[in-house]
This record gives sequence, structure tokens and C-alpha cells, in this order.
Amino acid sequence: MTTEGPTERTIIHRIAEHASYDSQTVGEVLDAGLIAHVGIIHDGSPVVIPMVYARVGDTLYLHGSVASRLMRALRSGIPACVTVTVVDGIVLARSAFNMTMNYRSVVIHGTARLIQDAADRAVVFRAVLDHLVPNHYDTVRPPSESELAQTMLIGIPLTEASVKIRSGPPLEEPEDLGLPIWAGEIPLTLVALDPIPDPDLEPTIPVPASVDNYSY
Amino acid sequence: MTTEGPTERTIIHRIAEHASYDSQTVGEVLDAGLIAHVGIIHDGSPVVIPMVYARVGDTLYLHGSVASRLMRALRSGIPACVTVTVVDGIVLARSAFNMTMNYRSVVIHGTARLIQDAADRAVVFRAVLDHLVPNHYDTVRPPSESELAQTMLIGIPLTEASVKIRSGPPLEEPEDLGLPIWAGEIPLTLVALDPIPDPDLEPTIPVPASVDNYSY
Repeated sequence: MTTEGPTERTIIHRIAEHASYDSQTVGEVLDAGLIAHVGIIHDGSPVVIPMVYARVGDTLYLHGSVASRLMRALRSGIPACVTVTVVDGIVLARSAFNMTMNYRSVVIHGTARLIQDAADRAVVFRAVLDHLVPNHYDTVRPPSESELAQTMLIGIPLTEASVKIRSGPPLEEPEDLGLPIWAGEIPLTLVALDPIPDPDLEPTIPVPASVDNYSY
Repeated sequence: MTTEGPTERTIIHRIAEHASYDSQTVGEVLDAGLIAHVGIIHDGSPVVIPMVYARVGDTLYLHGSVASRLMRALRSGIPACVTVTVVDGIVLARSAFNMTMNYRSVVIHGTARLIQDAADRAVVFRAVLDHLVPNHYDTVRPPSESELAQTMLIGIPLTEASVKIRSGPPLEEPEDLGLPIWAGEIPLTLVALDPIPDPDLEPTIPVPASVDNYSY
């Protein structure tokens, strides 16, 4: 969050931000996120596209249409960067300069590989939906042969992944601490509102537990 | 959200997703977002980093340390891609294949220019903070000469910006509509929790209206 700057140039009197390569922390942040921003190079320029994803073990999986230009580019083995960011709050310092955000982000550099094995593909299909709504997969119609054939699944290893986390109160310049200015955090969190049934839904069909109990 | 695929390959019986280049819609989505994912090419590989930003007129502004490698790279005039995504919900279809998300996203391609004029820089400083917490800037200590000298501001024109919006219920295969499976949306929204005062805050300092009235 432009925090490269503030942490380098600020006298740090609390530990507010840390970088890590710990695979458990990487996994936790990826599991907490909902969308990934996937970066590739296309015709010499960067392109950043939001996508759903799932993590299974030490691999991040993406899925898309076999006709998708992004998926075909990823499949060709070009370098990719996948970034997942969870926003946790706004950090308000006594100075404009030290305002920042609390967040957790993972940046993955890697090269995608095509997932072809049918059993692996079944795991990933389920994982992508379960990442969005846990335990929902078994309530819906599974993909048909035709739908499977239209869907490309790729995996990017988490071997080159780093995580940055900033939390806690603002870091202030020592001379600002005595100013009569409010400082603190505004926590932000994503929440789920009541589910909205499809207008075509037969009213006797019950809401499954996966939806009824859903909370982000 | 991998929806390039589904919209190409699904029989669309409702208008659920649309792409636009309308500058007003681009501006509305940028103003609704909180962080941008900024993509550049570094040593031949894409790099995607989350940053705070502000929109003023037809320009997106980023700020960071003059020591930041990302900011220096952007300043050098390399091509950049800035993507802002607002998540609005999870769309649950009767089939695993047609699950997707409701979202609004803007993708900007462009080249950054350094903002050097002092008056322009003052506007951008204020805009970045006001984008996070409206009307908060006047309650805090403005940047000192030294802080200004440490901060690089760059602007990317919104001339090459596109917006994609998906909303509404799932798109289903016609043959799935009769299945006894729940379908609909789980709306998601970011909410602000009660502000947390800095542990060092003098208790007599009041919470400013900008924080007290804040809602995302």
C-alpha cells in the first residue's frame, strides 16, 4: 500500500508491517482472499486481470475458458505474477504523510502449468467453488463432459511467494505524538448480506446449509 | 472473474455483465474502490503490487516514496496496467460451471507522468487521503517540506480505461432451470467497524466527524 515508503522512511517505534516467506502464512492469506489479480505481459505491456482462484497445498489454481486469451497466454508458459490482497482497515496518523492501510497481501511469481489429469481437475473444480462458498459443491450439478472440455485449469506453484502484512496503529513521527489530532484505525471487513434467491427459483427449494450458514 | 469464459460460452438469457469505456462509469468504479493493483514489467517479468490511489478528473494518481523501486520504475515511463476491483457478491448457479462473482472492475493501460507542480501535488496529496476517508485531510498535520521531498506523485491518464460490471442473478443453462437446486446471489460488501483509537492517543482528543461519520 505504498508502505514500502513509510516503513523505510519512518522511525519505527512499533512493529506494524512484516514481510514473510512462510508457506503457512502465505496459505492463510490466500485462503482469506476472494479474488486474485493476475499479471502477465501481452504485446510488451503488462495486463492485470481479476480472477477467482483456489489454493490446494502448495499450488494456486486458476480456471477459465479454453477460449480465454489470458488462460491461453498463461498456459503457454510465460511468467506470471498473481497478487491477492485482503484489506483490513484504514490507518489514520496524526500526519497526512503517515496515513496507510492495514492489509495482508501475497505476491506469487511463477509459471503456470496446465492441469490435465482428470482426478486432479476434479479436485480443482471443487476447490475453486469451495473457496468461494465452503461445502457448496455437493449441492450443485457437477460439470458435464462438455463443460469440462471448455474449461482450462492451470496451477502456479507457491515456491516463489511472499506475504506482507500490516496491522495495528499508525507509526508516527515522535514529534507528532503530542499534537491534538485524532489517530487510530478504522477496521474494514467484508460481510455477506442475506442471500438473494434467483428470480426463477422454485420457492419450495430450500436454502442449503452452505448458503444459509455462509459468512465471509 | 474468469467471466470472459462463461459469457462467451453460455447462452445468455439475461444481461448480467457488460463492458464499457464510458468515462463516468470508469470514474464511479474507481471512486468506489479502495486499492489498485498496479502491474509493471520488471526484468522481463510482470509484477503486481497493491497501492492506494486517488482519481481526480481524468487521471489516476499514485503516491509513494522517492526510494520505491516501483515508483521509480513507473516514473521512467514504462507501460503500466492499473486494475481496481470492487467485489459485490458470489453468484451461485445450479451448475458448478456457471458459478461466478458479481463485481465492478476498471483496467487502465497507460504510462505514468511525474507530478511536479507544487499546486498539483497539493491537490493529489489531499485527494489520496480524501479517497480513503472523505474530509479528513484538514484534521491532520499537512506534509512538511521534507516529507514532500520524500514523496513521489505520479499520474496515469484514464484515456485507455475500460470497465466491466457483472451484477444480478446467475446465468443458467436452460436445461438446468428445472433442477431442484438452490440458486441466487450472496451479496458481499465492505463495512467499517468502530474506529480504534491509537493506544498513545490523549483521551480528551475528540473523534473528528470524518472518522465518526465514516462509512464505506
